[in-house]
Amino acid sequence: MNVLIQGRSTACRTVTFDVGNNSVRLIEQRLLPHEFKVVESPDFRATAQAIQDMIVRGAGAIGATAAYGLAQGVMTFRGSDLKKFSAHAQTVFRTLAEARPTAVDPVNAMREVLAAMAPGESVAERQALALAAAEEFANEDVRHCAEIGRHGAKLIRNGMNVLTHCNAGWLAFVDIGTATAPLYAAQEQGRRFHVFCDETRPRSQGATLTAWELAQQKIPHHIIADNAAGHLMQRGEIDLVIVGSDRVLGRTGEVANKIGTYTKAVLAARHRIPFYVAIPLSTIDWKLTRGFDIPIEERHEHEVLGAWGILSDPESKIRTPKRARRAYVRVANPTSPARNPGFDVTPAELITGIITPAGIFKPGELWKHRRELGHEA
Amino acid sequence: MNVLIQGRSTACRTVTFDVGNNSVRLIEQRLLPHEFKVVESPDFRATAQAIQDMIVRGAGAIGATAAYGLAQGVMTFRGSDLKKFSAHAQTVFRTLAEARPTAVDPVNAMREVLAAMAPGESVAERQALALAAAEEFANEDVRHCAEIGRHGAKLIRNGMNVLTHCNAGWLAFVDIGTATAPLYAAQEQGRRFHVFCDETRPRSQGATLTAWELAQQKIPHHIIADNAAGHLMQRGEIDLVIVGSDRVLGRTGEVANKIGTYTKAVLAARHRIPFYVAIPLSTIDWKLTRGFDIPIEERHEHEVLGAWGILSDPESKIRTPKRARRAYVRVANPTSPARNPGFDVTPAELITGIITPAGIFKPGELWKHRRELGHEA
Repeated sequence: MNVLIQGRSTACRTVTFDVGNNSVRLIEQRLLPHEFKVVESPDFRATAQAIQDMIVRGAGAIGATAAYGLAQGVMTFRGSDLKKFSAHAQTVFRTLAEARPTAVDPVNAMREVLAAMAPGESVAERQALALAAAEEFANEDVRHCAEIGRHGAKLIRNGMNVLTHCNAGWLAFVDIGTATAPLYAAQEQGRRFHVFCDETRPRSQGATLTAWELAQQKIPHHIIADNAAGHLMQRGEIDLVIVGSDRVLGRTGEVANKIGTYTKAVLAARHRIPFYVAIPLSTIDWKLTRGFDIPIEERHEHEVLGAWGILSDPESKIRTPKRARRAYVRVANPTSPARNPGFDVTPAELITGIITPAGIFKPGELWKHRRELGHEA
Repeated sequence: MNVLIQGRSTACRTVTFDVGNNSVRLIEQRLLPHEFKVVESPDFRATAQAIQDMIVRGAGAIGATAAYGLAQGVMTFRGSDLKKFSAHAQTVFRTLAEARPTAVDPVNAMREVLAAMAPGESVAERQALALAAAEEFANEDVRHCAEIGRHGAKLIRNGMNVLTHCNAGWLAFVDIGTATAPLYAAQEQGRRFHVFCDETRPRSQGATLTAWELAQQKIPHHIIADNAAGHLMQRGEIDLVIVGSDRVLGRTGEVANKIGTYTKAVLAARHRIPFYVAIPLSTIDWKLTRGFDIPIEERHEHEVLGAWGILSDPESKIRTPKRARRAYVRVANPTSPARNPGFDVTPAELITGIITPAGIFKPGELWKHRRELGHEA
């Protein structure tokens, strides 16, 4: 990995492709929020490694990275034998698919690229089609997020306080994000509002990634402990909740998302605060009929028992020391075990609406609108 | 401070008095859960400092420490002049009261000692009465917690999963604790159950202090992120919730407690899981008529933006390295601010019962039972 940009970030896509160098450029997300760095992957094996090592994470972002990685891999093929070319393309596909075996986005993205390549009658033609298809996949991700923003921005009025949980932001997609898209769109339209970012223990994606994004975009915000949202709702300090999702059931409207989402939905319902979920169409699962059947990953207990950050003086005004040293501290009692479910499922009755690129729908009406929502049946 | 015990803890009171050495002995709570140490305060000024520095914390524990500190202070008076003795006692009282100016427990505890001393007709007699009154104050704290345990243990059945939030345990009192008392009593009665400890961000008292206590008592438990309880309730994995409180309104049954308590009460109500609050009688505020008027302390943002712990390798099985180094890591984006309300208020409608030394009461019926509950009116 070559370091391309270091230091302050400028608005940029999470994943891009440099045709001249045949390289994939990625924001090194593991260093955020303490360091901003864009790295360059010189070949498809390094790109697969970047997905595996979570330099890049988030559904849309790893999809685009795999699509670019496939194009990157087939570009290096020399010769004119279409059979050998196809075998090479399969090797590239498998290498990238194996980087994150449980994720569906890389495989879906690469299938689109493979399908686009198929009509090509020469190696050169197929290479050109692969490149165009990967670029189109990334652009489509950006367009879909922009559409989510366009629909969702209507929910945000001047002076509002919006609560978010975890990160379904621009870093998880190619650009703009899903849960963040309405915020960015509303800001562009000149609306002024304030965001509360749930810390989102145990991995703290709200305090690290979402807060970092909002700071980059100059959107006023405060980080809060996951425990604090209920109190703020009681005091009338939260007007709207927007979260992302890992899977929405098209048949029931149930929403699987980062652990703690369900809790916020229960609180929002009690306080009659609108609760929205923003997703691309690829997040809708049209098959599963019960949220209870969504597998809930139990993650490593060290996430709950401690925290990663940079060593610093809590009282100091200099929040990022010059020589930032990343470290893990064990917070919890050393002889106690932890449970660490990574996700939870929110029932449709607690959700005001699902914001999609095709519009905003009631969670119970996704099936009725399945044609508009891209269900092929 | 002299170190008395270091290393593994044995069952011991949080605060004790050594008459021979005229010293107050305290568990050094700031080192927990990574190190167990009992320290000895040689004079009342050091005892006041220990309260101020939070070597000891928790309502009952700082009350008893102040009572002992007052006795410790008056014991060193030499001479027989009762007027000078009283002036000295006032100096000791003020020094200890000023250690934690917003806490009511030290002042209430010391008033009891002063009142008990008053009938003494000589310095020696008053000194003896002070000592006996301080000891009685501590013993009464233990008896009250034991009574809470006796009443609360009836709620715990074999095989139950109990959720706790924050620490209202033996460390916060002289012994046994309030929210933990029913657990310890049920264990003594041979019942087998399992406890989930909410981490309780931002200060993580559940993951540190409560988990440490339960480990000492060999009560099976798991620490969970504050985000996880809702999911566990959905899956039927929580049967009962018991928390402590900083203030219960005798007129309305509203409960002020550590931030996040309200959220757990809302979740418990949705899942029809009994939600109990365990308190000594001194926690009841008979004056205030609206929970909204309870002042909610906004604490320093560095608590939310990072975490304290000991530097370690997250993957290592050796959880407490030999040379444990305590450190603060900043987790959050360095350019983002945080909000940090320390407490929240839970309405009576969400509370199944208030466990007191005088029995278990419905939150709406405290006023009706005010005589039994020690209201002097």
